[in-house]
Amino acid sequence: MIQLSEEITKIKGGVSSPKGFEAKGVHCGLRYSKKDLGAIISEAPAVSAAVYTQSHFQAAPLKVTQASLKKEGVLQAVIVNSAIANACTGDQGLKDAYEMRDGFASQLGIEPELVAVSSTGVIGELLDMKKIQAGIEQLGQAPSVSGAFEEAILTTDTVTKQTCYELVIGGDIITIGGAAKGSGMIHPNMATMLGFVTTDAAVEEQALKNALREITDVSFNQITVDGETSTNDMVLVMANGCAGNDCLTEQHPDWPAFKKGLKLVCEDLAKDIARDGEGATKLIEARVEGAKNNLEANIIAKKIVGSSLVKTAVYGTDANWGRIIGAIGHSAASVTAEQVEVFLGGQCLFKHNEPQPFSETDAKEYLSGDEITIAVRLQEGSGSGRAWGCDLTYDYIKINASYRT
Amino acid sequence: MIQLSEEITKIKGGVSSPKGFEAKGVHCGLRYSKKDLGAIISEAPAVSAAVYTQSHFQAAPLKVTQASLKKEGVLQAVIVNSAIANACTGDQGLKDAYEMRDGFASQLGIEPELVAVSSTGVIGELLDMKKIQAGIEQLGQAPSVSGAFEEAILTTDTVTKQTCYELVIGGDIITIGGAAKGSGMIHPNMATMLGFVTTDAAVEEQALKNALREITDVSFNQITVDGETSTNDMVLVMANGCAGNDCLTEQHPDWPAFKKGLKLVCEDLAKDIARDGEGATKLIEARVEGAKNNLEANIIAKKIVGSSLVKTAVYGTDANWGRIIGAIGHSAASVTAEQVEVFLGGQCLFKHNEPQPFSETDAKEYLSGDEITIAVRLQEGSGSGRAWGCDLTYDYIKINASYRT
Repeated sequence: MIQLSEEITKIKGGVSSPKGFEAKGVHCGLRYSKKDLGAIISEAPAVSAAVYTQSHFQAAPLKVTQASLKKEGVLQAVIVNSAIANACTGDQGLKDAYEMRDGFASQLGIEPELVAVSSTGVIGELLDMKKIQAGIEQLGQAPSVSGAFEEAILTTDTVTKQTCYELVIGGDIITIGGAAKGSGMIHPNMATMLGFVTTDAAVEEQALKNALREITDVSFNQITVDGETSTNDMVLVMANGCAGNDCLTEQHPDWPAFKKGLKLVCEDLAKDIARDGEGATKLIEARVEGAKNNLEANIIAKKIVGSSLVKTAVYGTDANWGRIIGAIGHSAASVTAEQVEVFLGGQCLFKHNEPQPFSETDAKEYLSGDEITIAVRLQEGSGSGRAWGCDLTYDYIKINASYRT
Repeated sequence: MIQLSEEITKIKGGVSSPKGFEAKGVHCGLRYSKKDLGAIISEAPAVSAAVYTQSHFQAAPLKVTQASLKKEGVLQAVIVNSAIANACTGDQGLKDAYEMRDGFASQLGIEPELVAVSSTGVIGELLDMKKIQAGIEQLGQAPSVSGAFEEAILTTDTVTKQTCYELVIGGDIITIGGAAKGSGMIHPNMATMLGFVTTDAAVEEQALKNALREITDVSFNQITVDGETSTNDMVLVMANGCAGNDCLTEQHPDWPAFKKGLKLVCEDLAKDIARDGEGATKLIEARVEGAKNNLEANIIAKKIVGSSLVKTAVYGTDANWGRIIGAIGHSAASVTAEQVEVFLGGQCLFKHNEPQPFSETDAKEYLSGDEITIAVRLQEGSGSGRAWGCDLTYDYIKINASYRT
């Protein structure tokens, strides 16, 4: 338990921690032996919001989830499979995604539009619907076990990703939990990043939508492993109101506290994904201050963590500030060479458009850690931003150059 | 000698092939034993144009070249060193670049503004001006030997890069030669891509400027090795008129032929750079047809060759069309999933938003070659474009993760 401020506390837990939520995972046979079908179920319909991939090739399950959410903006369950992304699968793929939704809804005895669908795995292959149907029956009997859902949604990930926070809203304790999968922003053959957030807070729909969009931009959208976007990316938040609080709106005095909690959950999951990037050994955080505005700060931060040369330098524990300058110099943001300052682990490496003397030994030791922060001051304005990535290693090549199996 | 059309013939040669140009290279001691200082010299002042890096951290020699060109738009020589980029070197760096220009001008007995300066190598280190001065004296006595200039400008490149074409303009034979260096679009620690083009054609200044900018956009700007732009990138073209042709303007009937020649030279050099990308074993060309316009076609083509996952798939000889879809899907251009067709080595892999049956064996054999073409049809309009890159291999990590030496 980590006390972050008067209002917000990090607790052990995940998507099934908020009141009224359960989460399950089973093995239905899409993968050889690992769990491959999971679900989050709320005891009451939950006000929900989602953000989807911007890819032109949006996968079938995302279309079905959009159709469900369009009805009333509430969901009671989400069903997720791994192994097969059900992307680039034409009309049959769309039919299958609807069948997956309707089958699970019927099993739960609820309206189909109360169910969202999500898939992750290989692109261009159809789901084995017999296995999915059998899996849906299994899900009905499966107990809500901690970690089973998180396991069922993994593909090339090496660890499960969950987080949970508690905060007090008008005297009521509310909980926000999250789960995610993803080992890169893009693996078009292993498509890709999913995030699920649950909360027992009562939240007004439009406020939840706005908050999710705003927070996604500074959390999930600020991570990069290999620079692109998959066909299946989705972040879904469900708020079932079981905490009994007064419904949160953007005018509620505790709205900033709730948003802060939601942001912490999304940020934790985003960082976990970057840290677990394919082949990665280190999490890299770029912090940019003094940009013209926050947007430009975020663009530069993402340029830094997205640079193959910065990533390989961090892997090689090389305090190669020239590569950081390269990444900053290349961005469309306002940058004045003479005003830029670059810091690594507290040491200033570059200032007044000239290299600064620094201890290479200290820098090398700092780069040997598993969390690296690169800080940049631009002195253009008051914008700040952060982004997260990982180092680029031989294992990234190994994972991605080996033939599909 | 390759006859391309009635007007244009590819010949053996380089920057010293056009009449009135000589090119030299010497070892002045910035590198341990390899040539590290070179120059192109014209017997007459040449109408010249240049394009420069868009980086916010433009290196000192580029500022000096801009100052020279600003005077009258003519140059008679360019001096280039490798090993030290003279970038991020503050006031002293700028002073050194001027000294390099003025020293060489005085050695040649011409006005300083007739000399351009270019550097490539490590960022953030000052030039050893004693060595440069001694090198300038050596250049005075050095003979014009084929290949010496091309060698002197290399850094991590594994091969020299030159090309040459002949064409007939109003009855006169004119020659266009080119040399380049660069093993990646960016190596901020090895900054970076330089291109030099010479021609004995007489060309009007504004027409030459316009043509260089237009052609750079579809040649040098359409290659990527690791996705970024260095502090020292520059392409310079010098036209000395020694062929004796009527001065070429945009209205001249042979202007399109000259532009075609200039484009062939730039494209050859650009492809040579992509092919020699750090760690690369293959050249990848992406051809996009049927885009809304040429700009969008170029954007998508560059997305494809820039994708780490496409690059690793090509290295692994894996016909992983899902990664091509990922790269296309991610672009801001107009794309309709149902209309997209993806081809590899003549086989259609993807169509009607569904995978197409294809021979994996044939695809694997095709990918085992050293020039790979990925073709995409969008059916949105009549725009077409191309881009070039290389595969991403273990050696890229090895080269870039090893500590600076």
